[in-house]
Amino acid sequence: MSGCQIDKNVIRPIRFFNGACQMLDQRRLPTEEIWINYTDYQGVAEAIRSMVVRGAPAIGVAAAIGTWFGARDIETESSEVFFVELEKVCEVLAATRPTAVNLFWALERMKSFAHANLDRSVLELKIGLEYEALAITQEDEQLCIKLGRHGAGLIPDGARVLTHCNAGALATAGYGTALGVLRAAVASGKKISVLADETRPFMQGARLTAWELQKDNIPVTLICDNMAGYLMSKGEIDCVIVGADRIASNGDVANKIGTYTVAVLAREHNLPFYVAAPLSTLDMSLTDGSQIPIEERDAREITHVGDIQLAPSGVPVRNPAFDVTPARFVTAIITEAGVVEGDYSQGLAALFNK
Amino acid sequence: MSGCQIDKNVIRPIRFFNGACQMLDQRRLPTEEIWINYTDYQGVAEAIRSMVVRGAPAIGVAAAIGTWFGARDIETESSEVFFVELEKVCEVLAATRPTAVNLFWALERMKSFAHANLDRSVLELKIGLEYEALAITQEDEQLCIKLGRHGAGLIPDGARVLTHCNAGALATAGYGTALGVLRAAVASGKKISVLADETRPFMQGARLTAWELQKDNIPVTLICDNMAGYLMSKGEIDCVIVGADRIASNGDVANKIGTYTVAVLAREHNLPFYVAAPLSTLDMSLTDGSQIPIEERDAREITHVGDIQLAPSGVPVRNPAFDVTPARFVTAIITEAGVVEGDYSQGLAALFNK
Repeated sequence: MSGCQIDKNVIRPIRFFNGACQMLDQRRLPTEEIWINYTDYQGVAEAIRSMVVRGAPAIGVAAAIGTWFGARDIETESSEVFFVELEKVCEVLAATRPTAVNLFWALERMKSFAHANLDRSVLELKIGLEYEALAITQEDEQLCIKLGRHGAGLIPDGARVLTHCNAGALATAGYGTALGVLRAAVASGKKISVLADETRPFMQGARLTAWELQKDNIPVTLICDNMAGYLMSKGEIDCVIVGADRIASNGDVANKIGTYTVAVLAREHNLPFYVAAPLSTLDMSLTDGSQIPIEERDAREITHVGDIQLAPSGVPVRNPAFDVTPARFVTAIITEAGVVEGDYSQGLAALFNK
Repeated sequence: MSGCQIDKNVIRPIRFFNGACQMLDQRRLPTEEIWINYTDYQGVAEAIRSMVVRGAPAIGVAAAIGTWFGARDIETESSEVFFVELEKVCEVLAATRPTAVNLFWALERMKSFAHANLDRSVLELKIGLEYEALAITQEDEQLCIKLGRHGAGLIPDGARVLTHCNAGALATAGYGTALGVLRAAVASGKKISVLADETRPFMQGARLTAWELQKDNIPVTLICDNMAGYLMSKGEIDCVIVGADRIASNGDVANKIGTYTVAVLAREHNLPFYVAAPLSTLDMSLTDGSQIPIEERDAREITHVGDIQLAPSGVPVRNPAFDVTPARFVTAIITEAGVVEGDYSQGLAALFNK
């Protein structure tokens, strides 16, 4: 079975080939590039939970691979037992993180594949699930490239673009969503420069976005999250582009904490605010964003950096990892099936019929 | 000469008595309470520059003490030489940080005192300048208490109050401006709780505001700067109060970077946005906030925490330390001379005639 090529110039945070999986430990970037081997679904679940791998599309890819690991290791020849055990594997993977819907999308797709092949032997099911996980991985990068082409036209030549968190190659199987749009704009000959919010507390902007844009020679300047408003007020930002962890059917967007603030600021300064995400990030079962579960993470992410204590011992902390940006703040949603503006309820549903 | 009392339960970041000065090293809070002795004006200048002492009113107090140190050490009996040398001392202190006007206000007040006593001997001038520095120190705490009483009525019982940076006892000679208002509200019997923005990159909220409110048993919860918008959208914040580094005559407010963003968010959610500052923070020579110089600080404040590297080597960084919030976002400015709402151009000028 062929897999992703390993090309030193292309960033792919998950290597899945010949039935093995390695993930780039994103907690240790940008100072260390450490790859961790995973061979079972429990390991993949822990990688998602502990944010070795993060970013909604990449979490989906990892979950698909984890599902295959789990399926492969079910020791039975009985289809009935296999499906019961597969369900348990998926439950463990589903319990890792609540907000990014791509996780649940990938698990559903893997289960649907298995259920569509009920008549196959357990061995054939296992082989089929490996193909499906590989397909999800490869499709993710391909759809990012397509999404990027759809969005590139929205980015003016010379634009100074603000992004928040990391919706780049590192958040996907490769190429990226928001950063994929910027890569496509650059590929089309435009000169752009990027302002990267550092994105407290996990510092995806400082550690990941700055790192991957630097690697691609796309000019990037790092700022703290609380500086974007000032730079907008000085006329130093032309547009905003971010990814998404879950988009409700009305266009409300859950994304990394702080995205909502950037959206409010963009509107105050009459700047376009773009969201780039694959169809797998759309949750058409939700009427609006208020139904999206928001993960609260550990206080230590805020009170410490490494072993350095930044806050008094015992201080209460709130650490919501995501927020919801109402659709009215979103100028356009860019997907691999096209760009939607205006009436998201109609426009997003229509994407699935393309 | 009597000085500030040292009371373990009262936070005063600058101890100035018997002609000596100690400052609490605010870079090392909350994990270490280290006091540094200063005996000359160069040391005080370095303390301001390196943020051992910070917060506009406290910078003013430190500058006054530094001016006295400098004056005391001028070795001359000639008034003429003394005034030339005093000017040089003030120039060194003035060059430490550009935004907080209290620095320049304190230097001007010290120089004015000296010039008003031109006929005195150099020895008498030196003694007089020590009295003046002590007066500035003591007045600062007293005016904070007065300011707090003026503002306390604006804070509703049960309010969940967001504050940004540290405008507390640590930013003044004692008691605080924004936190002084909250202390006064609590003293009047109100129950309030505080949400403290951590305030990147220097972490004044996490390190200082959380520390001093915890000491005072005022409930405080720490959040990252990018979380305030989310909590407002969930209805979990009732009002905002911040300090200021310089206020133009039209009511535009320069304060810690990120304040403008909080103000935009407050308006989006119809929440009052209060600014608490002494008259010494008003710069009536400026018609609006665009004339306020904004300090840009070192990139390392953003790329590193201690020795831990958070961003790829060599990434360009913007690090503006302040921003300007236009007067239209400010619900009221609270000073020791009273509260101004509405027409700031008239209202602020009128404060000086009270």
